[in-house]
Amino acid sequence: MKINGTPTRTIWLAADGWAVEIIDQTRLPHELVTTRLESLADAAHAIKAMLVRGAPLIGATAAYGMALAARANSSDLALTVAYNILHATRPTAINLKWALNEMIQALGTVAEADRVATAYARAAEIADEDVAINSAIGDNGATLIQAAWEQAQARGADSVNVLTHCNAGWLATVDWGTAIAPIYKAHDAGIPVHVWVDETRPRNQGASLTARELNWHGVPHTVIADNTGGHLMQHGLVDLCIVGTDRTTRQGDVCNKIGTYLKALAAKDNNVPFYVALPSPTIDWSVADGVAEIPIEERDPTEQTHMTGKTEDGHIVTVQVTPDGSPAGNWGFDVTPARLVSGLITERGVCAASPDGLLAMFPERAV
Amino acid sequence: MKINGTPTRTIWLAADGWAVEIIDQTRLPHELVTTRLESLADAAHAIKAMLVRGAPLIGATAAYGMALAARANSSDLALTVAYNILHATRPTAINLKWALNEMIQALGTVAEADRVATAYARAAEIADEDVAINSAIGDNGATLIQAAWEQAQARGADSVNVLTHCNAGWLATVDWGTAIAPIYKAHDAGIPVHVWVDETRPRNQGASLTARELNWHGVPHTVIADNTGGHLMQHGLVDLCIVGTDRTTRQGDVCNKIGTYLKALAAKDNNVPFYVALPSPTIDWSVADGVAEIPIEERDPTEQTHMTGKTEDGHIVTVQVTPDGSPAGNWGFDVTPARLVSGLITERGVCAASPDGLLAMFPERAV
Repeated sequence: MKINGTPTRTIWLAADGWAVEIIDQTRLPHELVTTRLESLADAAHAIKAMLVRGAPLIGATAAYGMALAARANSSDLALTVAYNILHATRPTAINLKWALNEMIQALGTVAEADRVATAYARAAEIADEDVAINSAIGDNGATLIQAAWEQAQARGADSVNVLTHCNAGWLATVDWGTAIAPIYKAHDAGIPVHVWVDETRPRNQGASLTARELNWHGVPHTVIADNTGGHLMQHGLVDLCIVGTDRTTRQGDVCNKIGTYLKALAAKDNNVPFYVALPSPTIDWSVADGVAEIPIEERDPTEQTHMTGKTEDGHIVTVQVTPDGSPAGNWGFDVTPARLVSGLITERGVCAASPDGLLAMFPERAV
Repeated sequence: MKINGTPTRTIWLAADGWAVEIIDQTRLPHELVTTRLESLADAAHAIKAMLVRGAPLIGATAAYGMALAARANSSDLALTVAYNILHATRPTAINLKWALNEMIQALGTVAEADRVATAYARAAEIADEDVAINSAIGDNGATLIQAAWEQAQARGADSVNVLTHCNAGWLATVDWGTAIAPIYKAHDAGIPVHVWVDETRPRNQGASLTARELNWHGVPHTVIADNTGGHLMQHGLVDLCIVGTDRTTRQGDVCNKIGTYLKALAAKDNNVPFYVALPSPTIDWSVADGVAEIPIEERDPTEQTHMTGKTEDGHIVTVQVTPDGSPAGNWGFDVTPARLVSGLITERGVCAASPDGLLAMFPERAV
């Protein structure tokens, strides 16, 4: 996607050919800052402190983290340590483990002397594959938006309203995005899309990231409190929901940013289609029951008690929004049971959120 | 209730016997500031700008607003104008209209010369009646918490977890609160209550007000993002929900702070009891279908785009949390259909959220 006309990804190889550069997403929306990752430790920190976030981007960053690690020491032992360090950064998004396994698989078959080159090549492939997958998801999802637009038009509406949660746009991936890719494709094709952007407390990825990238691309949108979507659905103001996912199980249970489950419940209660954009690296075939089995990250309560923004005179300031002495809790994700999901938009097409649906789309996974 | 040992209400007659003093709730949680209302205009501003809020307190403030108006001019015309000004301040909470009608009814029967005294007396009664109603709601709701505690204890839990939304505590009323009154009564009776406090964006009444008053009273609580409650309910961490209401219809549809409907959906999906604390002045007998008929206030989008809090060095600062140029929407309330409500906790007892349930509790309303 582009920022002020310049095609930009979230992560890329630096001009020197070895360091890795990223957009520091903790500085958005008010500041566009890039930073260099020069080591395994830099990559691990970038993931843990959420300079990069979004399941696909976490995976790509981990892949480059292994390349940076190999550059320092490409022995079996060092790479195993690197794997463990990167894997421990954040527990929920399955793309992390997927990417690390891809890297280990690529590196395990080559001699130590060839590992740095192999690592950088495989990481670049993982990044490019992510972009291709997401573009395909964009095409497949745009068809759903087109259908919703035809229905809305028949009712006399002048736009098609899509509700999304968190950030599953290009900032959550290497490029294109997952949930937002169909929106970009539909918008670029001339369909009048309007996006309801859940601000997505506590970290406000909707307000900070989704609104930021929709703004850059010129897609009409409105930022709303996470509390709002049910009311909008009750009043016919949402034509469909499209969200991303950090991990989807083989039975179609969808783990995503906390609060997704509430939107799915409201969508079901109001007959609003609820789609999940799902790149295949985000499917966890080893897990069936998402509510029972997926580990839900808990993060520092200060993300809940404090908010950061821009003052009138342009300074970035952090303020405490709770009373002194009031504790806070901070769960990062929840699980939407498959029964609440209208369909999964994969790079191969749209399937039902069910074991049969997923196996029909990925028959190579049948045991 | 008490602040640092001193019994305090939200609104009271000043020592001079005519001005009305209030806690300025826009300054909470970080600053405890009171202000004087000396005129109709002051009272109207206090309601509109949310120095006072919460349906019962809005009603009490409007009642005193009529007394301040009468003090300036107690003619029929002036009082009609005052009624209209106060009624126009905020559209959703029905207690506003109820209190104004009570005042007009009291003033209409007395000579002009007696209206100031009558107005102040009736406003004081409305305030005292609110306190008595809420205390009764507290007793009736505490029984529900006791029952939930016994079940939790049988499962080996060491506390009973109640989830609440927005602020329906003593700060939303003259005193005691509605949804929080049962919590205070249960806590004071020795039941180990813990409260999940939805922060309640955009205006954060949960984080700013509910946490503040629970903190003052020593009730264990945890502030959470509005996105969180569904996840907690899926994992057995919520024993019951108790919320307030700004207007409940004769068929039991509950209008309350935006986002309440989402919590009710999650409660239903997880078999968590969902109760609504309902003082009788908050029942709108003239409305049946809440979703179709209750006007939902829309407020300034800056409440969504900006947040106010305390910096590390103690300054109160407002920050913008959205990108420049990203619009926001701000709906204040939503409607929870009666089918999602386990029961209504009135001052007379707990009844079903249904026409029969309400009429059994208020038989004088049967037509």
